[in-house]
Amino acid sequence: MSDPLRLGIAGLGTVGAGVLRIVRQKTALMRARTGREIVISAVSARDRNRDRGVPIGDYAWEDDAVALAKRDDVDIFVELIGGENGPAKAATEAALNAGKDVVTANKALLAHHGQALAELAEAKGAVLRFEAAVAGGIPVIKTLTEALAGNDITRVMGVMNGTCNYILTRMEDAGLSYEEAFAEADGLGYLEADPNLDVGGIDAGHKLSILAAIAFGTQVNFDAVELEGIGRVTIEDIRQAADMGYRIKLLGVSRMTGRGLEQSMAPCLVPETSPLGQLQGGTNMVVIDGDQVGQIVLRGAGAGAGPTASAVMGDILDIARGTRVATFGQPATSLRAAKPARAATPVPYYLRMALLDKPGALAKVATALGDAGISINRMRQYDHVTDTAPVLIVTHKTTQESLDAALAAMGKTGVVDGEPVALRIEEV
Amino acid sequence: MSDPLRLGIAGLGTVGAGVLRIVRQKTALMRARTGREIVISAVSARDRNRDRGVPIGDYAWEDDAVALAKRDDVDIFVELIGGENGPAKAATEAALNAGKDVVTANKALLAHHGQALAELAEAKGAVLRFEAAVAGGIPVIKTLTEALAGNDITRVMGVMNGTCNYILTRMEDAGLSYEEAFAEADGLGYLEADPNLDVGGIDAGHKLSILAAIAFGTQVNFDAVELEGIGRVTIEDIRQAADMGYRIKLLGVSRMTGRGLEQSMAPCLVPETSPLGQLQGGTNMVVIDGDQVGQIVLRGAGAGAGPTASAVMGDILDIARGTRVATFGQPATSLRAAKPARAATPVPYYLRMALLDKPGALAKVATALGDAGISINRMRQYDHVTDTAPVLIVTHKTTQESLDAALAAMGKTGVVDGEPVALRIEEV
Repeated sequence: MSDPLRLGIAGLGTVGAGVLRIVRQKTALMRARTGREIVISAVSARDRNRDRGVPIGDYAWEDDAVALAKRDDVDIFVELIGGENGPAKAATEAALNAGKDVVTANKALLAHHGQALAELAEAKGAVLRFEAAVAGGIPVIKTLTEALAGNDITRVMGVMNGTCNYILTRMEDAGLSYEEAFAEADGLGYLEADPNLDVGGIDAGHKLSILAAIAFGTQVNFDAVELEGIGRVTIEDIRQAADMGYRIKLLGVSRMTGRGLEQSMAPCLVPETSPLGQLQGGTNMVVIDGDQVGQIVLRGAGAGAGPTASAVMGDILDIARGTRVATFGQPATSLRAAKPARAATPVPYYLRMALLDKPGALAKVATALGDAGISINRMRQYDHVTDTAPVLIVTHKTTQESLDAALAAMGKTGVVDGEPVALRIEEV
Repeated sequence: MSDPLRLGIAGLGTVGAGVLRIVRQKTALMRARTGREIVISAVSARDRNRDRGVPIGDYAWEDDAVALAKRDDVDIFVELIGGENGPAKAATEAALNAGKDVVTANKALLAHHGQALAELAEAKGAVLRFEAAVAGGIPVIKTLTEALAGNDITRVMGVMNGTCNYILTRMEDAGLSYEEAFAEADGLGYLEADPNLDVGGIDAGHKLSILAAIAFGTQVNFDAVELEGIGRVTIEDIRQAADMGYRIKLLGVSRMTGRGLEQSMAPCLVPETSPLGQLQGGTNMVVIDGDQVGQIVLRGAGAGAGPTASAVMGDILDIARGTRVATFGQPATSLRAAKPARAATPVPYYLRMALLDKPGALAKVATALGDAGISINRMRQYDHVTDTAPVLIVTHKTTQESLDAALAAMGKTGVVDGEPVALRIEEV
């Protein structure tokens, strides 16, 4: 048997405690599967005395995560602190600089500094792994990086924020308003301290930017993700979508096109009979299209101590077995800086707007669409509500550029009250 | 850059031709992802002159797969011949004996000889990989062996024969009889030369036995899989199941219990709203429950040149990257010979029988169940069809043992015509 593999774990929240528990309880299982003893040398967290339901007295303690990362008795630095900067970044850099392998669950860190960290890891001959950073327990990083390595990936998409999916599901199932469903999720403790990370799509956008880098061999570029949160989705949109056979999901979609790399995280309509349409509650799903494999769908818990710790352990055990794969699946220096392309692939759109009660109003809207080269698949106008009438339109496939032109033209007609809602329809 | 990785490919059917095509077309992609050149040294097949849509003149030819497996210019022997014995087995053994790594898509070979081959590979320091053997392009072997290695697996189950799922879906959607749907699948070329491999559950049983070995650290034991094909499922069963919110699938289920290892491949009822219930047509799905990760669902194409070749390439590229994992996830000599347990876990059952028109008939059936300790959840009797009346029963959870006792007692009542149909209900 080889030498023990020694972990240093920084961050002892629910995930960190989960990892501790697995390492303590599954000694024999891990030894059988890797041929090595997995041990914990040292831990670090903000509060040494908090009760975590698992004893930490057996391990050396460090107040400072950077000091932990540099310890001679640590082979793998396990970063579970979180946050894109601060100690998480400093300690990860310190570990890599010392040539130590790093396993992290930190999507913000990877989304903002993934390229630099991958280059550092490569220069030092270290491995940087992050299965837990995207979609919790779902092995999507491994699937994209390893299992599907013989494919050119044509699209990667997914529902990767369980809180948003919970809110949208509750709006649909219980007829709650966005505000009511948000309050319910908040009461259940589902929301981040800054709720905009969830409902603004930032957290899910981080994850999408990481998947896109692996799928398309490009440098992570979170800043180029087109972000739109779920705050403007109304119960009316959900009902209308359902009536037409669709459900609304906060969906991340990335494709490589002739015009550049598309990365969009926004509410979208998906067919209700599709796997994405069937996804209820807090569960996550990633859908990968490859030129050889066709479509692979992966579904599971996107958060929680157990699922996230499962992904962290998968990375640790891979390293224990001697598996060493480049951070984003190929040398960091070979990742291209892709030009961002704004939704270049034509898709159908769902539009909702409030039409003022003026003669010829509907014709003006239809003309604005026609002038932009957009043809209408379905259109419905409803009874007037006070001064305005709700109008719903489903277009045939069109580009974001054409749609923007049509929306600008509509704005000038003087018959549309406020901003129309425009949601992409992603056929699956 | 390291030396080129040299393949010898035996078997040039649709999958073999698919692998050839990928290796020829994706040179740059594979080099970027593995740091190595992947080349083909030699090929072998039954007929050298058949048009495969891809040229083979660049490669050395061997009439004999065993000779191919032994060639000095072959690093990985790729076995795509098929069949549990014959040249597939002989050549795989020859390659392993020569210390060469082997990648195969051959489920029958693994199901029947997996333990011996894993021991041979281990003794010779060779790697034996087989992602393509189970569920085509779905990365279920990698997920179980690597991604979920930090979990104790509690259940693995799946729909792993697309032909059976196609037949059952067509019965449900188009109201076809089993015979009609079978004939349709046959006309589309979906059936194996020996159709019993598909509809008898043998092919899917091979796959389940492989998954169970990895999930539970046991020696592959296909002979212990309880096999029941789909030939006795009637359109009436499908309608009744639908009426109660279920769909019928040929479902493989494996669990480790206190009484031993359960392995069952049989038609089962699953909730129609579950991912398994939603699975239509030829698609495959595997559902894995782990003590940490919760439930992971993987969905994709279970057959076809592209998806199967994708899985074969994933294995080849892993080897190119230097990944070396034990055949079934742990040393072959440490795999236990688990005692087979026949469906020890209590589940609800669906029963259908034809009741003779005799006084007290229904009471006798109910008594037989009650005497075996089985309580009834739902029961329906329908109008008499000629001499018999269809009776449907859904039981509460019970063991196969109790059910067998009840069925034996029913047989002696003289009121049941023929053999009752009994299908497990697998809650998801």
